[in-house]
Amino acid sequence: MPLGFRGEGITYTARFCGVETPFYFNIKETIKTYIVHGDFDFVVSPLMFSGHSPSKDRDPEVHNLDRRLYPYAETDINVAWAQWAKAGIVVAKICPWLDLDSEDENVRTDSEAILKQQIEWASYLSLKACLLPTPKGNSCANYARCVNQILKGPKNNMQLLLRIPIGMSDNDYSPRSNASVDSWQTWNSFRVLCDHHNLLTIALDIKRVLPPENSLKRWYGEPVDAAILDTDIFLTKARGNTTYLPKRHQKLIADLLDHNKPPFRNFSSALSYEGQATDSLKYTEYERAICKALLDRVPNEKASFIVTVLVVVGAGRGSLVFASLKAAEITGRKLKVYAVEKNPQTVIALDEVIKANNWVDIVFIVTSDVRYWNAPERADILVSDLLGSFGDNELSPESLDGAQRFLEKDGISIPSSYTSFLQPLTASKSYQIAKARKYILHSESACVVKLYNVARLAPSQQVFTFTHPKWFDKESNERYKKLQFEIPKDTGSAMVHGFAGYFNMTLYKDVCLATEPSTKKPDLFSWFPMFFPLRMPIRVDRGSILEVHFWRCVDSRKVGFLFLFLHFMLLIWIALCNLKQVWYEWCVTSPSSSPIHNCNGRSCWMDL
Amino acid sequence: MPLGFRGEGITYTARFCGVETPFYFNIKETIKTYIVHGDFDFVVSPLMFSGHSPSKDRDPEVHNLDRRLYPYAETDINVAWAQWAKAGIVVAKICPWLDLDSEDENVRTDSEAILKQQIEWASYLSLKACLLPTPKGNSCANYARCVNQILKGPKNNMQLLLRIPIGMSDNDYSPRSNASVDSWQTWNSFRVLCDHHNLLTIALDIKRVLPPENSLKRWYGEPVDAAILDTDIFLTKARGNTTYLPKRHQKLIADLLDHNKPPFRNFSSALSYEGQATDSLKYTEYERAICKALLDRVPNEKASFIVTVLVVVGAGRGSLVFASLKAAEITGRKLKVYAVEKNPQTVIALDEVIKANNWVDIVFIVTSDVRYWNAPERADILVSDLLGSFGDNELSPESLDGAQRFLEKDGISIPSSYTSFLQPLTASKSYQIAKARKYILHSESACVVKLYNVARLAPSQQVFTFTHPKWFDKESNERYKKLQFEIPKDTGSAMVHGFAGYFNMTLYKDVCLATEPSTKKPDLFSWFPMFFPLRMPIRVDRGSILEVHFWRCVDSRKVGFLFLFLHFMLLIWIALCNLKQVWYEWCVTSPSSSPIHNCNGRSCWMDL
Repeated sequence: MPLGFRGEGITYTARFCGVETPFYFNIKETIKTYIVHGDFDFVVSPLMFSGHSPSKDRDPEVHNLDRRLYPYAETDINVAWAQWAKAGIVVAKICPWLDLDSEDENVRTDSEAILKQQIEWASYLSLKACLLPTPKGNSCANYARCVNQILKGPKNNMQLLLRIPIGMSDNDYSPRSNASVDSWQTWNSFRVLCDHHNLLTIALDIKRVLPPENSLKRWYGEPVDAAILDTDIFLTKARGNTTYLPKRHQKLIADLLDHNKPPFRNFSSALSYEGQATDSLKYTEYERAICKALLDRVPNEKASFIVTVLVVVGAGRGSLVFASLKAAEITGRKLKVYAVEKNPQTVIALDEVIKANNWVDIVFIVTSDVRYWNAPERADILVSDLLGSFGDNELSPESLDGAQRFLEKDGISIPSSYTSFLQPLTASKSYQIAKARKYILHSESACVVKLYNVARLAPSQQVFTFTHPKWFDKESNERYKKLQFEIPKDTGSAMVHGFAGYFNMTLYKDVCLATEPSTKKPDLFSWFPMFFPLRMPIRVDRGSILEVHFWRCVDSRKVGFLFLFLHFMLLIWIALCNLKQVWYEWCVTSPSSSPIHNCNGRSCWMDL
Repeated sequence: MPLGFRGEGITYTARFCGVETPFYFNIKETIKTYIVHGDFDFVVSPLMFSGHSPSKDRDPEVHNLDRRLYPYAETDINVAWAQWAKAGIVVAKICPWLDLDSEDENVRTDSEAILKQQIEWASYLSLKACLLPTPKGNSCANYARCVNQILKGPKNNMQLLLRIPIGMSDNDYSPRSNASVDSWQTWNSFRVLCDHHNLLTIALDIKRVLPPENSLKRWYGEPVDAAILDTDIFLTKARGNTTYLPKRHQKLIADLLDHNKPPFRNFSSALSYEGQATDSLKYTEYERAICKALLDRVPNEKASFIVTVLVVVGAGRGSLVFASLKAAEITGRKLKVYAVEKNPQTVIALDEVIKANNWVDIVFIVTSDVRYWNAPERADILVSDLLGSFGDNELSPESLDGAQRFLEKDGISIPSSYTSFLQPLTASKSYQIAKARKYILHSESACVVKLYNVARLAPSQQVFTFTHPKWFDKESNERYKKLQFEIPKDTGSAMVHGFAGYFNMTLYKDVCLATEPSTKKPDLFSWFPMFFPLRMPIRVDRGSILEVHFWRCVDSRKVGFLFLFLHFMLLIWIALCNLKQVWYEWCVTSPSSSPIHNCNGRSCWMDL
């Protein structure tokens, strides 16, 4: 009963349904019953009989028979184990009663020995995963130490799923279990002790009574790779034999399936631009904004003789030119368009269209950097589409400052303003990826991402706003903002791995485009969010304040280039350029301080 | 008036006395007054007149005269600045009123510009240090961001001293200052934001009313490079004109001078052994212990005919052999000594002494590993000196387990037991050194150190105990201990950078040797403490519990050796050895969790 597509090698999109079984001596029969005749994709099964006690082996009075041999089941004898092991259809279930942090030293050392023994056995059988028992009580340091040693062992490539209960039920394995303990705390302590190892993931053991919604949401940002549902949770319809899950459980499972996608993907700029050019909602909104601006600027009685001069900044393949021409047509206004574009390759297609439609007297293509273009006349309307995923991050403010020179005093800029937004995230997989990188600089780089496998910990808040045209020329484009996010009380504690960045832009008056989740329209797909990582995740407790500082820094600096050719001759060329650079720096100061990230733009910056 | 020796290039042992002056236009006169005619080593002086406001410069209405020129004093004109700058006799004092975290944006941006301008000026003058003003209020993120940019700038090598007040006084510069704020918190936040940069240090501004003793002690582990005393603090004797510092201030200054020594030094084993061999207290105590053991074993009436067999494990140059012979002489007991030593070079000197003294019938040198030595007879007393700085860390337990084979059932081991101790430390300079290392593995390595520039945050606690001989052969030498240190309430918050390790050993009955500070005798100098670092420092708040876990792990593992010779011929030799290894792992679980350090002994271990 696969719950999703199982592609060749694409295990992350596959969704499987397994069954947890008791210990059977004959694993072949187990597989036959549940997988061949049953409808399951895999079994979670103990691999050995767990009745012995290693501490008694150390007792010299006991006959020194090698007890390590006999507790095993026939896992190694009866079946072609390589076959079922490699297919991943058996997950080893480690004894649930192990207590590696017991105050009783015998229980503790026995538990250590059995854990090691069972995992070695599973590893020998080439199993892909083991299900580890829930840590008992509040303390899990010794358990984590043993698991960490296994994870970092020279040969380990097995995934270890730690069974973490959420919610409440009537019965429980553990004698020292404390229902009032937030199981997230246990998980968090365990994974920090194991230094966020990527082979340590979660099997959520979902109980009948679920905690509040916000508390559940935290898990969407954690590496949950399995969910365990007891059959007791299923309800039976009053009439008939059909069973079903309670609504909140249904939603939780659906959400977990939805979030358990591959971690962040980076998109190259080219791919992003591709998306933008075909985003119909975006250009419809631009068209609406230009219509309103034309109507405001030229009254009906003057429509026949006033020609509005419109400059498209960054014309590219012409989408904004076409939107402008369409707006002129709809409103019946006369238009003259300068399509300014610094990249000559991108306007070839536009040039063709203009010729084909006989617009050569209306649309003028200018291949120049808008900041240095010597405009032949002043513009009534500036239209641009220069926003990045975080609004101003692709230097729209600096570009439009340059374009403003040739805008009429009462001219209109579309967009007229934009504001960036930030939101704290749990994103453990992104952190694991960043941690695997060699250099500290990489773990400070902001990137454009699709946000899967994240938990959004608080509503997003405004960061930087830019308005165009700005009437005080010298106004700096540097910005500084301090934000305070309150973590809702019912969320409980959570880990912040970084921040999602969005924006909201006003094209003209009430015509807006937004990627900020609370106002974003679903069919806008030009922009993915930005992700600003933290080098070390920061833990926030329930109801606490997360204080974040963001800076937009602008500086001009001398940059040296060195070109070295070694081909029969040696040529060294050193050039000094005066570049203007823009970058962000960020840090957290509450509940604890982080270092300031991306100091002097050392990891990521934009050149002007 | 140098307070200490100023060696060529050895600036850290130099202690200087300077004077803080107001702004004078003529820096030459300032130097003449205070240094040439006065008795000071350096002046702390503002370098420019601080009456201008960069925000007004941005106002286009104001005539655009380059205001950056005129506020400077004659620092660059009147004197051969290179001379006094390089001598370090001028420290630039940055405007104290700067408020880089002001809510008023003009004040904030003006402060930023002035800070940058003044530090650039000091840097141009090749000054070695600047005194930065105390952060105003609770928030210092923007101030730290600007300082961090300067510290990480491509050309900076100037030391920036942040002025941090301790205690209370009647007047204060800052309008937003909050006396109830613990200034350590401000410092801590600032340095974490600047990522523990090694050029950011502290100028402690010591006030009249000092905080509690424990709170003062925290600073001994911080990078305090200057102390500022207001002349108001000095008292005048009722009779006469002499002034003096109050007693607590005297002690504080003396302690700061004492602690401000070079950071941790590593000692090679050879140097340590050198110290041990000449440590007279140690061998006197061994002698006392052997005397007591001989008297207990052989009653007076049998002294003339019973020969006690004594084995020295690790005889080296013979100090323990001589101590044993002396004890026999004192007690009038007959002795036969086997001096077992695996390193044949070290016993040459011993052999000479034995021949010269005609002890050839009493002392027998055995060059063998004690674990594999086939002893010709059973020993009454085993004497060894195998402890490392953390007690069991040089594998004394494993060596004595091996020697125990040939000890009489009622035989005595000297030492009869030993216990290791741990103590949490603030040791910021050691962290800066570790952080500068490229690899994470280095920052997990325990090392033997002299503890300067540290604050001891709580009394030390017992960790692992070993007793010899042990009567249950199979007893493991693995250990696990959980410790809880309570940070005293009057200490305030502090940073834990790692743990000092000591030991306490019982040689025989009441004869003990200890490096644990509360019981250590001052003239014992064989061992320096051990230091177990934390990869990331952990902040502990007043009255909180610091929970630490320590493991002693023992494992045998196959280790491969590969020898490769490339000299006209290719020889590859792969050897597989079965080695037993011992290592420690450690972590913190409260107030927050750290990763488990030194997993599988990856950074430091001992081979058997």
